[in-house]
Amino acid sequence: MAPPEGLPKMEYRFLGRSGLQVSAISLGGWLTYGGHVENENTFACMKAAYDVGINFFDCAEGYAGGESERIMGEAIKKYGWKRNDLVVSTKINWGKANGENVVNNCGLSRKHIIEGVNASLERLGLEYVDLIYAHRPDRNTPIEETVRAFNHVINTGKAFYWGTSEWNADEIATAWRYADKLGLIGPVMEQPEYNMLARAKVEKEFEHLYEETGLGLTIFSPLKIGILTGKYNDGIPKDSRLGSSNDAFVQGMNKRVGDDSWKKNIEVVAKLKPIADKLEISQATLAMAWVLSNKNISSAITGASRPEQVYDSVKAIPAVKKLTPEILNEIDEILGNKPAAMTRRFM
Amino acid sequence: MAPPEGLPKMEYRFLGRSGLQVSAISLGGWLTYGGHVENENTFACMKAAYDVGINFFDCAEGYAGGESERIMGEAIKKYGWKRNDLVVSTKINWGKANGENVVNNCGLSRKHIIEGVNASLERLGLEYVDLIYAHRPDRNTPIEETVRAFNHVINTGKAFYWGTSEWNADEIATAWRYADKLGLIGPVMEQPEYNMLARAKVEKEFEHLYEETGLGLTIFSPLKIGILTGKYNDGIPKDSRLGSSNDAFVQGMNKRVGDDSWKKNIEVVAKLKPIADKLEISQATLAMAWVLSNKNISSAITGASRPEQVYDSVKAIPAVKKLTPEILNEIDEILGNKPAAMTRRFM
Amino acid sequence: MAPPEGLPKMEYRFLGRSGLQVSAISLGGWLTYGGHVENENTFACMKAAYDVGINFFDCAEGYAGGESERIMGEAIKKYGWKRNDLVVSTKINWGKANGENVVNNCGLSRKHIIEGVNASLERLGLEYVDLIYAHRPDRNTPIEETVRAFNHVINTGKAFYWGTSEWNADEIATAWRYADKLGLIGPVMEQPEYNMLARAKVEKEFEHLYEETGLGLTIFSPLKIGILTGKYNDGIPKDSRLGSSNDAFVQGMNKRVGDDSWKKNIEVVAKLKPIADKLEISQATLAMAWVLSNKNISSAITGASRPEQVYDSVKAIPAVKKLTPEILNEIDEILGNKPAAMTRRFM
Amino acid sequence: MAPPEGLPKMEYRFLGRSGLQVSAISLGGWLTYGGHVENENTFACMKAAYDVGINFFDCAEGYAGGESERIMGEAIKKYGWKRNDLVVSTKINWGKANGENVVNNCGLSRKHIIEGVNASLERLGLEYVDLIYAHRPDRNTPIEETVRAFNHVINTGKAFYWGTSEWNADEIATAWRYADKLGLIGPVMEQPEYNMLARAKVEKEFEHLYEETGLGLTIFSPLKIGILTGKYNDGIPKDSRLGSSNDAFVQGMNKRVGDDSWKKNIEVVAKLKPIADKLEISQATLAMAWVLSNKNISSAITGASRPEQVYDSVKAIPAVKKLTPEILNEIDEILGNKPAAMTRRFM
Repeated sequence: MAPPEGLPKMEYRFLGRSGLQVSAISLGGWLTYGGHVENENTFACMKAAYDVGINFFDCAEGYAGGESERIMGEAIKKYGWKRNDLVVSTKINWGKANGENVVNNCGLSRKHIIEGVNASLERLGLEYVDLIYAHRPDRNTPIEETVRAFNHVINTGKAFYWGTSEWNADEIATAWRYADKLGLIGPVMEQPEYNMLARAKVEKEFEHLYEETGLGLTIFSPLKIGILTGKYNDGIPKDSRLGSSNDAFVQGMNKRVGDDSWKKNIEVVAKLKPIADKLEISQATLAMAWVLSNKNISSAITGASRPEQVYDSVKAIPAVKKLTPEILNEIDEILGNKPAAMTRRFM
Repeated sequence: MAPPEGLPKMEYRFLGRSGLQVSAISLGGWLTYGGHVENENTFACMKAAYDVGINFFDCAEGYAGGESERIMGEAIKKYGWKRNDLVVSTKINWGKANGENVVNNCGLSRKHIIEGVNASLERLGLEYVDLIYAHRPDRNTPIEETVRAFNHVINTGKAFYWGTSEWNADEIATAWRYADKLGLIGPVMEQPEYNMLARAKVEKEFEHLYEETGLGLTIFSPLKIGILTGKYNDGIPKDSRLGSSNDAFVQGMNKRVGDDSWKKNIEVVAKLKPIADKLEISQATLAMAWVLSNKNISSAITGASRPEQVYDSVKAIPAVKKLTPEILNEIDEILGNKPAAMTRRFM
Repeated sequence: MAPPEGLPKMEYRFLGRSGLQVSAISLGGWLTYGGHVENENTFACMKAAYDVGINFFDCAEGYAGGESERIMGEAIKKYGWKRNDLVVSTKINWGKANGENVVNNCGLSRKHIIEGVNASLERLGLEYVDLIYAHRPDRNTPIEETVRAFNHVINTGKAFYWGTSEWNADEIATAWRYADKLGLIGPVMEQPEYNMLARAKVEKEFEHLYEETGLGLTIFSPLKIGILTGKYNDGIPKDSRLGSSNDAFVQGMNKRVGDDSWKKNIEVVAKLKPIADKLEISQATLAMAWVLSNKNISSAITGASRPEQVYDSVKAIPAVKKLTPEILNEIDEILGNKPAAMTRRFM
Repeated sequence: MAPPEGLPKMEYRFLGRSGLQVSAISLGGWLTYGGHVENENTFACMKAAYDVGINFFDCAEGYAGGESERIMGEAIKKYGWKRNDLVVSTKINWGKANGENVVNNCGLSRKHIIEGVNASLERLGLEYVDLIYAHRPDRNTPIEETVRAFNHVINTGKAFYWGTSEWNADEIATAWRYADKLGLIGPVMEQPEYNMLARAKVEKEFEHLYEETGLGLTIFSPLKIGILTGKYNDGIPKDSRLGSSNDAFVQGMNKRVGDDSWKKNIEVVAKLKPIADKLEISQATLAMAWVLSNKNISSAITGASRPEQVYDSVKAIPAVKKLTPEILNEIDEILGNKPAAMTRRFM
């Protein structure tokens, strides 16, 4: 299956203060590939992504117990893509990819980082990944040990860049402290959640880090698990995934997000429809373009389960220029969650 | 006037990971000394503080346009206290101590830090302060410049230790990054607000810094401008300062704190009365002892306007041991604002 | 053979200030594996250890002329344990593992560390060990050379962490001096003797190192070659190993420990029986739990010659909580060897 | 009063790995000058010392509450000695030189080191001392802070070299760790007790430091408060200072040394008389020469209360060469306290 004609051209952005370019939209294997989406489907989504110019494929040892890496690696082999045309990532810290015994098979110790990367590369069938992430902080391991271990991974040729996922700003600053002190490579990217409904970390907490450390972001959940597509504008259908109170994933999300904020969010999202209509784009495209309008975002990781979703996501690329300062203000007023700018000087 | 008999003995604590000892309770010149409290009163409060064993006197160039430093220096001279028995601090960044033209008379540039410290020392009539703080961050000045300038101040003998006031955790971590890289002295203390109603920064945001950098805290507002004394348990009297909607200070606080949270806070505070009664201490003593029960607090800065308030504050020292884990739990349940502990390892 | 039912759950502890977790009780090959204990027995002991949750297996090039490493490696292979579930150590410095000619086949020179590690890995049949120890100091080799060589071993992926065994406190501090100066990895663990009869090094000499360097301890001889089990409470049987004056090992120990202190020790140990009885545990369990009650101990290395001994050792894990401050005081009074605390400030 | 004719010539030794030369015998103000010895006597002893070529005069803020420094400074002024011909030391940490309030007037914090040195210089009437010591460790202050503060003292011209007194070997090694890391000056000398009856620290504990850090020693108590002069060979006279159980100093010493070891020591000392007789020197000269025969000793600090004692001490200089290896062995056998040499390589 080839992509429909007339799709916009992919945009590539530098990954923070590095020389690496990633597609502004990328494909992630979170909760899907190797998991409940059928393998053939996964292959199709990856091919669609490649065809529209997506070069960055994101994975983690913790996704689907390692199966996500395995399927992604299989796809790369199956389609014979050239290694140098791809930016492949994985993440180390947790999950049961290495068996049920999690003692020393999780965390950010030197042992698990090195053993974990080796196991991931084997599952991926690759000699190296481009990006390796610390998947969440490990507050029991000294940050210096983690910085050294990721540098070892880079120095042994098993990754090109390292970064973090869902770390706090001061933890990233501390990683740079040790990197600087030891003349080592610091974390170049962070992978936080970012979307219209979750802004504080990216827009406020990390504010100093962009200039201070050259931090680039590869954000996840740009559509907030579909909420921002507007598909729940008229309520959550009983037969949808969100409506299914038996779905383990939904139960987890409910617990994580909180039921009430969920409902309130759906109301807010419905109010964005007139803006999408005015700009003649879908709400999904609006939400994705809004993410990309933030210049600190290097790539927005999407999680497609059908090729059409991939094709659709690319429409956000040209839509960014429709988001004039006036439109962004209108959106801010509807969302009501724009973080206050930090004072720069007190008088 | 001598202190009443039978006052508890002062406790001294190390200032973070340093060899300096500060009294667990200290006296600050914020909003009062040199300002709207009469000078004779200021002298009396300082003498009362010295008499009960307070050795740490906190000031800032920004307090009362420099008058606060001037009066504090006068008191030290008047009573003939030995310099080595005192820990005197001041803070540099903002205020109109050096005139109306604030260009280069505020901020954390090398120029203002050095010129500001010199002006403060002149107002204080001292050759050096023990502690010098960066009074709020200055996000227009590179942190490296600020770190270097405070080291210059220390190396020229004008201060012994430097720290920050109301900085974010990642800014403190970044200051340590440059200190480490350059072999310079990092910030040893931070001065945040901390009390039963404002816990997130001290108990959550700074969590990693205590061990990572040896950060000590000299906190302000332990009684939340008097709210925690319980004096508003029955509502805010129209003729009190808080009740006066014309008072510029109150208007500022209203704006800062938000009207609603203010009222809600007063309701919560009233619920603490039974605990204070059970422990046979006042609510003010309970609130102060609660602050001191946090081992990361080196000193709680109080802002007395009458000697009796100083004498009273010391009662918190022996009250700390009444705060058993059970009592602390009871308080947490009433306050309902205990920050969730950070995950240490994900599996 | 499966472990008996109802055995307590293993506890895992971080190895000093590192992110690696080791079982609180571990199995060592000192003097036994590859030596006078039969191989089948060794296999059985290792399996018993693995079954009760022991993940740390300790070895040295010097144990049984290299045979200890060989047998340990064979057992790992035989049982098909996953490498990432194990923490395997060895030690470099002395012994005749590499032949009778010890010139350059002992010591802590760069040559012997690198060649020795390679030979150990070959005997173990492993690509890397988790922990590599400097087995005793080598006072003819500059510590800087040793620090650099162990970093080479780590950087070439042949070990994850390095440490020392039976070094003096100032030698460990000096290793950190060079590590710091050169931006290299310092020693994270030390392996001293520690038990109720040998406390000075762990409780006094190393006192500053725990906080200063994050030192963790993997101690050996927790039962003092069986003396602390109480089996000699009624005297040393002529037909026991200790009673045999012909046994080379015993002669060595006699020489090492001194005859008189040996006898005095046995008398002291007998006095501990009432405490063990009161707590309803064996004297062996008491002695092991006492070691584990010291928070600076990451792991106590035991030297089992029968699986039953391994199963028995685990009982110390839950027994630690029986050692209240009062019980620990009682034990201190009987032992009469508690080192005086160091003065912290002279006035 | 001029020194008797025919006194041996003073010997000068380098202070560890520094370019400074100190007289092998020096004069200390411990417990005497400014204290219970009359001032005129002090002046006479200092003059005698100067006349016999002693150039190193040792003091401390803690000796006699600061009076020791005051009298020493007065003597230097009285006799008009040239500053460059003298090596003057003092020590900072404890004592009540700065008043009864010891909070921040003791310890090795930056504050007390800087304030303490200033106060000492004022008492001495000098612009600088040659040597400044950390008088005992302060285990509440980070060693890095202490290293930085002594460097500040040196950089502001108030001392030329800094060292330690009664620190442990690993504490000295740790001071060098921070000095090295920060490019600062490390401690060049240590002042321990050293004499025939107290050898372990100098001969064993510090063994690696001499070569590793270039440590020089200025030892105190070479005659063990007179015991080694042999004056108690026939028992302690009731009317002597040691015999007086009312003397506060003696009571303190009794408590410190322990009554029994004291008596045993006196018996051992008596056995040295035949050796002294054979060498035709006094036992005092033997004991002092024995100290000086250790090449790691830069200077032995004596504490004279009469000029004759000073003149007498110099006889030890030429006596050193009488201490052949055979004689030293004889002495070792009598003393029975020679520390075992450390193993240099295990095979």
